[in-house]
Amino acid sequence: MNETIYKESMNNLFEAHEALLRRPNEKEPGTNGWCQRYRYPVLTAGHIPIYWRYDLNPGSNPLMMERLAVNAVFNAGAIFHNERFLLVARVEGADRKSFFAVAESENGTDNFRFWDFPITMSETADPDVNVYDMRLIRHEDGWIYGLFCTERRDAKAPVHDQSAATAACGIARTKDLVHWERLEDLDSGGSQQRNVVLHPEFVDGKYALYTRPQDGFIDSGTGGGIGWALVDTMERAKISQEKILDPKVYHTIKEVKNGQGPAPLKTPGGWLHLAHGVRNTAAGLRYVLYMFMTSLEDPSRVIHRPGGHFMAPEGTERVGDVSNVLFSNGWIATPGGDVFIYYASSDTRMHVATSTLERLIDYCKNTPEDELRSYASVQSRNQLIEKNITYMERSGMR
Amino acid sequence: MNETIYKESMNNLFEAHEALLRRPNEKEPGTNGWCQRYRYPVLTAGHIPIYWRYDLNPGSNPLMMERLAVNAVFNAGAIFHNERFLLVARVEGADRKSFFAVAESENGTDNFRFWDFPITMSETADPDVNVYDMRLIRHEDGWIYGLFCTERRDAKAPVHDQSAATAACGIARTKDLVHWERLEDLDSGGSQQRNVVLHPEFVDGKYALYTRPQDGFIDSGTGGGIGWALVDTMERAKISQEKILDPKVYHTIKEVKNGQGPAPLKTPGGWLHLAHGVRNTAAGLRYVLYMFMTSLEDPSRVIHRPGGHFMAPEGTERVGDVSNVLFSNGWIATPGGDVFIYYASSDTRMHVATSTLERLIDYCKNTPEDELRSYASVQSRNQLIEKNITYMERSGMR
Repeated sequence: MNETIYKESMNNLFEAHEALLRRPNEKEPGTNGWCQRYRYPVLTAGHIPIYWRYDLNPGSNPLMMERLAVNAVFNAGAIFHNERFLLVARVEGADRKSFFAVAESENGTDNFRFWDFPITMSETADPDVNVYDMRLIRHEDGWIYGLFCTERRDAKAPVHDQSAATAACGIARTKDLVHWERLEDLDSGGSQQRNVVLHPEFVDGKYALYTRPQDGFIDSGTGGGIGWALVDTMERAKISQEKILDPKVYHTIKEVKNGQGPAPLKTPGGWLHLAHGVRNTAAGLRYVLYMFMTSLEDPSRVIHRPGGHFMAPEGTERVGDVSNVLFSNGWIATPGGDVFIYYASSDTRMHVATSTLERLIDYCKNTPEDELRSYASVQSRNQLIEKNITYMERSGMR
Repeated sequence: MNETIYKESMNNLFEAHEALLRRPNEKEPGTNGWCQRYRYPVLTAGHIPIYWRYDLNPGSNPLMMERLAVNAVFNAGAIFHNERFLLVARVEGADRKSFFAVAESENGTDNFRFWDFPITMSETADPDVNVYDMRLIRHEDGWIYGLFCTERRDAKAPVHDQSAATAACGIARTKDLVHWERLEDLDSGGSQQRNVVLHPEFVDGKYALYTRPQDGFIDSGTGGGIGWALVDTMERAKISQEKILDPKVYHTIKEVKNGQGPAPLKTPGGWLHLAHGVRNTAAGLRYVLYMFMTSLEDPSRVIHRPGGHFMAPEGTERVGDVSNVLFSNGWIATPGGDVFIYYASSDTRMHVATSTLERLIDYCKNTPEDELRSYASVQSRNQLIEKNITYMERSGMR
């Protein structure tokens, strides 16, 4: 490639990338009133800066080859910081190793742009093989915490099994999302942990954690359900007692396992929760998002349980590296009461859906609970239909 | 939302719904002669009436929120009744509970519209948690029977396992598809049952059932294959003897499990059967449709076994809540010999494919049987190729 062609090709690469980053997002037509989906993902592997992937020097890269490819960008924590919408994304290289990187947007729905460098997260004495799915929590102690999954090979697995792993909760804190202080991993007394989230406020003077105890790495086994535990300190966090706040339930969207999504949002009517529920199918596990609310007085007590999923994979969200998955570990409520729900589809890309605290509270309070039986759900629906037919006849709609 | 905007938004919702319901269907270009696919699904979650999902009263629903969402419409039984094409669909709420609802069309390929209320199916002494996949059979005893799968939590499963279930055959009958008499579940002597179908005629003065015995809820285990059993009465139906009419076979489209689809269609050449076959893949199970024919004299004897699948997932059919699945439990033969095959794709939506009795019989009689070995299948193909080359040369095509 001569110098002119090289420069031109490189320019094309940068221009296409800029066009992707600057593409305005659009609301999808149609909504059920709960939230508003958007046409384009907010982050994909294509959003990763060119200079994170290519060696730009023609001398050492005469063929203009990508040198360190990125496979996917998903499962981002989210925080509103210095008047900007920040996502701490799980960036996965072609080598399957994930790391964290901050992307920033002014409006929360498009023009997300990564900072110059990914996050350098130091290791503990027992090095992580992989880290991912960070929850960001601005705690009332003044720190921003990042709780994430840290994964290591199962030391007890035989050599021929190279996929057995153990999952634990890694903990770090920061003030600026650039410099991170890694703390000790959560000591959960032997059970594996995923989807551990810090409650934003002290409860009885202690730190409160949402947990998801499990026997194995993928299977929740005899564990499962969203747990609740109080710990004295985050600097050497140790769970002594754990209670299940939201269990797995037969023939619901969370019959196989479930886990807390981002930290809950405080509202006058209670804490708003976004979580994921998992069921099994003939084509593998299916992950959907659901909501519930807990009490302001006792955040470990569920006060509203709207039945069924809040969001399930739709359209192009259905397919990806791990198909049939929606997952959220980040959302942002603005001071004006708008809510930006950041969710990943099929372990591949990040999307946004917008709503308001008012709508989400209305959804939680007025969506009937799961009746757990087909006959009972038909009765609920018949009541709604009868009420509507009466209304339609009275108002001349029919 | 002020009153004018509310009314306008509600009108838009109803108009978009009407447009969906009234959309004419179109034949897909291209056919293999076996059957004709159509461009649009005939039923989707979007076809569910607005007044089954929204509370239309602005007083109790000021934000115009969907209150009882519907996730999917699939696996419908079918019957030609009062000169109308009726589907008894499996409607699945966002809460995963399924129920039955009748949708009606004049031409069988579009403009399907649900009746005002879903079917209220009463429970037995042991309440169903879920019911689905109804087969509709107009039996010569004068009743229309609905045989369906009823599912309950496995009473022997430990508390931490919230997904173990047992499947049995529920039985109900009706004259008008509005009022249903629920009978006792099929007593199959301990084995679980799915895909049980009633033969439309008496055999030796008894009711005849197609069965699918299985050890577990998903795995067919030591069971499997399409079975055949005679029972004395449908009012307390009890299987004493069961023989396998169409077994699972290694390295065929039905190596993992198979099951009868709708009730067979009577033709002068024998009973026409539509069934599903299942194999395993790295991405989960794959469900395809296949056909066979049984003898008029002895309906438990298979007389034609065309090799391979009759229909497999194509295009957008491939992806859904449970991807890679075609399933059919309903078809209609008109007095003129047209056949309307109603099939669901990927546990998400209903489609139609049209054919004729003549074509389906031709398919069953003249499609070579599965040779069960690669070498043998090449020999079959070479015979066809040689025959064709001779024909092409003789007729000037080459």
